[in-house]
Amino acid sequence: MNTLGTLFRLTTFGESHGPALGSIIDGCPSGIPLERERIQTALDRRRPGQSSITTARSEADQVEILSGVFEGKTIGTPIAAIVRNTNQRSQDYDRLKNVDRPGHADAVWRERFKHRDHRGGGRTSGRETLCRVIGGAVAEAYLASALPTVRTVAWVAQVGNLVSAVPEPGLTREQVDAHPTRCPDPVVREEMSQRILAAKEAGDSLGGSIDVRVEGLPVGLGEPIFGKLKALLAQALGSVGAVTGVVWGPPDLLSRIELTGSVFHSQKDTYGGIQGGLTNGEPVYLRVFFKPPATLAEHAKGGRHDPCIMPRAVPVLEAMVSLVLADLSLQMNARPHSA
Amino acid sequence: MNTLGTLFRLTTFGESHGPALGSIIDGCPSGIPLERERIQTALDRRRPGQSSITTARSEADQVEILSGVFEGKTIGTPIAAIVRNTNQRSQDYDRLKNVDRPGHADAVWRERFKHRDHRGGGRTSGRETLCRVIGGAVAEAYLASALPTVRTVAWVAQVGNLVSAVPEPGLTREQVDAHPTRCPDPVVREEMSQRILAAKEAGDSLGGSIDVRVEGLPVGLGEPIFGKLKALLAQALGSVGAVTGVVWGPPDLLSRIELTGSVFHSQKDTYGGIQGGLTNGEPVYLRVFFKPPATLAEHAKGGRHDPCIMPRAVPVLEAMVSLVLADLSLQMNARPHSA
Amino acid sequence: MNTLGTLFRLTTFGESHGPALGSIIDGCPSGIPLERERIQTALDRRRPGQSSITTARSEADQVEILSGVFEGKTIGTPIAAIVRNTNQRSQDYDRLKNVDRPGHADAVWRERFKHRDHRGGGRTSGRETLCRVIGGAVAEAYLASALPTVRTVAWVAQVGNLVSAVPEPGLTREQVDAHPTRCPDPVVREEMSQRILAAKEAGDSLGGSIDVRVEGLPVGLGEPIFGKLKALLAQALGSVGAVTGVVWGPPDLLSRIELTGSVFHSQKDTYGGIQGGLTNGEPVYLRVFFKPPATLAEHAKGGRHDPCIMPRAVPVLEAMVSLVLADLSLQMNARPHSA
Amino acid sequence: MNTLGTLFRLTTFGESHGPALGSIIDGCPSGIPLERERIQTALDRRRPGQSSITTARSEADQVEILSGVFEGKTIGTPIAAIVRNTNQRSQDYDRLKNVDRPGHADAVWRERFKHRDHRGGGRTSGRETLCRVIGGAVAEAYLASALPTVRTVAWVAQVGNLVSAVPEPGLTREQVDAHPTRCPDPVVREEMSQRILAAKEAGDSLGGSIDVRVEGLPVGLGEPIFGKLKALLAQALGSVGAVTGVVWGPPDLLSRIELTGSVFHSQKDTYGGIQGGLTNGEPVYLRVFFKPPATLAEHAKGGRHDPCIMPRAVPVLEAMVSLVLADLSLQMNARPHSA
Repeated sequence: MNTLGTLFRLTTFGESHGPALGSIIDGCPSGIPLERERIQTALDRRRPGQSSITTARSEADQVEILSGVFEGKTIGTPIAAIVRNTNQRSQDYDRLKNVDRPGHADAVWRERFKHRDHRGGGRTSGRETLCRVIGGAVAEAYLASALPTVRTVAWVAQVGNLVSAVPEPGLTREQVDAHPTRCPDPVVREEMSQRILAAKEAGDSLGGSIDVRVEGLPVGLGEPIFGKLKALLAQALGSVGAVTGVVWGPPDLLSRIELTGSVFHSQKDTYGGIQGGLTNGEPVYLRVFFKPPATLAEHAKGGRHDPCIMPRAVPVLEAMVSLVLADLSLQMNARPHSA
Repeated sequence: MNTLGTLFRLTTFGESHGPALGSIIDGCPSGIPLERERIQTALDRRRPGQSSITTARSEADQVEILSGVFEGKTIGTPIAAIVRNTNQRSQDYDRLKNVDRPGHADAVWRERFKHRDHRGGGRTSGRETLCRVIGGAVAEAYLASALPTVRTVAWVAQVGNLVSAVPEPGLTREQVDAHPTRCPDPVVREEMSQRILAAKEAGDSLGGSIDVRVEGLPVGLGEPIFGKLKALLAQALGSVGAVTGVVWGPPDLLSRIELTGSVFHSQKDTYGGIQGGLTNGEPVYLRVFFKPPATLAEHAKGGRHDPCIMPRAVPVLEAMVSLVLADLSLQMNARPHSA
Repeated sequence: MNTLGTLFRLTTFGESHGPALGSIIDGCPSGIPLERERIQTALDRRRPGQSSITTARSEADQVEILSGVFEGKTIGTPIAAIVRNTNQRSQDYDRLKNVDRPGHADAVWRERFKHRDHRGGGRTSGRETLCRVIGGAVAEAYLASALPTVRTVAWVAQVGNLVSAVPEPGLTREQVDAHPTRCPDPVVREEMSQRILAAKEAGDSLGGSIDVRVEGLPVGLGEPIFGKLKALLAQALGSVGAVTGVVWGPPDLLSRIELTGSVFHSQKDTYGGIQGGLTNGEPVYLRVFFKPPATLAEHAKGGRHDPCIMPRAVPVLEAMVSLVLADLSLQMNARPHSA
Repeated sequence: MNTLGTLFRLTTFGESHGPALGSIIDGCPSGIPLERERIQTALDRRRPGQSSITTARSEADQVEILSGVFEGKTIGTPIAAIVRNTNQRSQDYDRLKNVDRPGHADAVWRERFKHRDHRGGGRTSGRETLCRVIGGAVAEAYLASALPTVRTVAWVAQVGNLVSAVPEPGLTREQVDAHPTRCPDPVVREEMSQRILAAKEAGDSLGGSIDVRVEGLPVGLGEPIFGKLKALLAQALGSVGAVTGVVWGPPDLLSRIELTGSVFHSQKDTYGGIQGGLTNGEPVYLRVFFKPPATLAEHAKGGRHDPCIMPRAVPVLEAMVSLVLADLSLQMNARPHSA
């Protein structure tokens, strides 16, 4: 359904061409400093049109907080925030009314729900991810109070067959955001830019992967069996539209699993910060794979086109990770080791 | 926590050296044929000691159904089934009382829950997976009635750096089970066997991957946003102990994402049977990565040792997939397209 | 928390003096006719200021649908609807900033959540019930398609010690709404009116009870054990602010339980339409008790005052019942008797 | 479904004439002292056959703990406990195979689930309540550690039209258990005994009410809106088979609601310990109404017959209240007022 989490819960709503999209965050404790600006800043990082390598759509995406915050702090009630769709005319898409876009879920969605909303993907549009970013911004406001050492940073690790070097620990979001590719490798990212521009001109698209690293975590975050940290991260990240795989572990994990156990277990960071489903106090590593987006130029002429969504997906993945961490942090509060 | 699913729900309990392990399956409709033998057969496929390449532990693992079944059919009430731990003496492990086994979650678990059960991993033991197999057997009994064309088959696709050829469609569990490696490739599996035996003798271990294919699915299975089929599969599979990654798509997906979109989207089976989070009617493909198990010979002398858990994990992954499909099938019943 | 239901789920948000209140309804099937007008009409029935016996606050309460509806039908995505607080100045309440209103939860709420919103009760205000009415209107749109014979009608059965005669089967909402007391007894309601006016002038208040009757139900609605119809109704109705008791059964049930079993079980309608936790096909009866509201004149001078909230609570209780029925209807779809 | 609670969760299973009934308690923190004896003692209080006024069935009801406890303490894993049905022959009931017992849910249950278990009510039997008592015993073990001042005591307040005097604060379970009626009023209980014996001889039955009082609660227990303490208590208590109504407030609450607000709100204990849905630090009062049981002599000849189930229901209601309090206590841990 449209709700994620047990104690820190995100519920999202909204179609890409309806009146508005929005999020309800239920379960955030009271007394957490939360300004509208924090959410707006997070949304601005997701916004398209920030550079020549992303889509040209100008989406204002101004967030309005409707509840849950008073005098700059949360009050323990559900936090509702919405973003109006200013660019709501769907004429661009009218001509798609009876056309299933290749590579899109249109046919599947119509088969299941019959009454398809043909306006630009409706609920299956990537625009839905802004609701996740709102939720993530609130989760990070909470984590800043509850677990102030936690730092979640994601970056573009692969575009097509171009692979970034693994960045040093301590990488910041500012450093990642400094380049439109959101790849921290100063050499590879220039080539990535060119590759993305070429794909754009050719009406083509590119996939790849994003890496996520979380530093400063306490030991023991996670719940047994089906609520393991890695299981919840897998669900949260796997729910993002174009994601097609998730690996828990350092960037070279898929090579490491070819090693014998005696070698594997002697490697540094080899558990990716998770043992027995719980954080072990070391940085958590994730690698998230993306398929190339489906909207090709010929079908998107009237609509708009993002040749490589990964730079914009970086803050979306950070948001999903923060939502899971906030939820597990509350769950650990609930059941301290020995009551 | 220890419950998975929304409408078809599995709750598991039990430590590896306590009196018993077991499962409650809540939400299975009434009138489904379900014999004890079906569950026992499923457990037998997971049992160790079936060949020289798996652990020598002899675990009887006799299942007893405590509720929910009457005269060979489900009656709509919770189905409870347990397996006694016949081999309950934990002297073998007593010497581990104050020793954290390297590569195990012992230290992390103790930090979080303080009162650690030192008896062979307790709840974090791989023995916990028998509860999943019980749940999966019930889910498959349900699917046999509700979606009789569905066939879920998993196989060992990689051991260390040895990679199986992709089997033809229509592969059966019987064919997979015909070889102790559970690899269907007649050439590679012999080499896998030797590699596993060598690891066993060396007190070493091996990881790799398992592939899962589901054939005969209807269109539209899955729920929007956080309940997408791929998100729920990721949680279910990611909750299995040694799993360290999940990819949705055909076996060569990680190579395909290096392609441009125009090429990627023109490939056969490239969506792995899932679009917009819902089944599209084609076979669903999954690749699940495993790290090498941690119990090395020197620590496991008194305990027991599985050099490569993947052959035994095959029925566990099939169970997790079937549980997710049963849950989503009930959810699709609940909300037929147009009420 | 702020979500009710398993498959048909209502999530509410909003404080009485924040920017807006609203509801997300998740799980409503697609293809259900739903016009804004249906929700607005439901809200209008809850609105104060409709007669001299209710509070004089003029609350416009104009609903806006933000998502989930396209061309007059639901599309299977979450339905979000909000109501702006037009009368948002909280100066009236500023003077209450450091005063706990007697009979209100102010002190308790502040102790728990520390950062109390002093603006007129915030989230504990009766204004929160408009979110329930929105949810109920959507639930009734769904029921109109799925279970078209269902008719849920509530009425004021008692004010102070004045008790209404039990109305005949077939009573309609129009008949109930025809009098400002929402009591269908043509004699007693006149006395009720006078009693309420007298309380208003005296700055006093009155409690009593509301009866609910649901006609046209199918057999078998409800889930076993903790999801029994009566358990879910109890939670849903018990969650309404001023409700202080719920009885399942005909209006005279509390007298009937003094009878011996042989007499009790031979009475007509004695099961109130519920047996074994499921509907038995007969009308469902509920009696819901209300304590007198707490806002007394001296404290409410600046704020506003409802001497008897029950006439306005009638549509709120109907909404809660409809939400439970919609949820159980979807659950019964999911698990038809014999799969 | 068959699970209650958000963080402290009870899942129950078992039919009255199947192999066993049992409970899984998930979410109990580790390190809580819990001996088998505590659960057995709780079950013994529920057991029939303790006096001439209850049913003569001899049910051993020996509990076995299968998991979650090690060396006398909980270890943070799910606690599973079962009770075998020693008296499993269902010949007594065979003759009922095609007979719907009047006043029972047999017909309704068969209509919904088709494949009815005719053996003595199956899952709808009162025997199901022993699972609740197991859960309650674990909840009380937890509360004894987490909120050691809490005391939950229930007693029989009414049988037929005989009404007990309200006992003094500080009443203990031992005092209640001292008389087979579990009514603390030394005069009325003798008359109750005679009334129950007479009903037994006549093959008749009696209903009434049970009062529950919880002393020693902290301020602030409960969650907003749909998770209000009174809403969760209503669901938990309303889920018990014969319960037909719940009132939150002191024993005379239904008289008090006839008073004007100014009088009502000046009374002692008038809020029943709950304001705004949260505990206010005063004792919580509940009144729970029961209809007379349905099994009349002529139908129960082969089976067994309890003329008045309320004395045995006393520990069941205490269990339900303790389960709700344990769950809300964990939820309050999770979200301390100001994070």
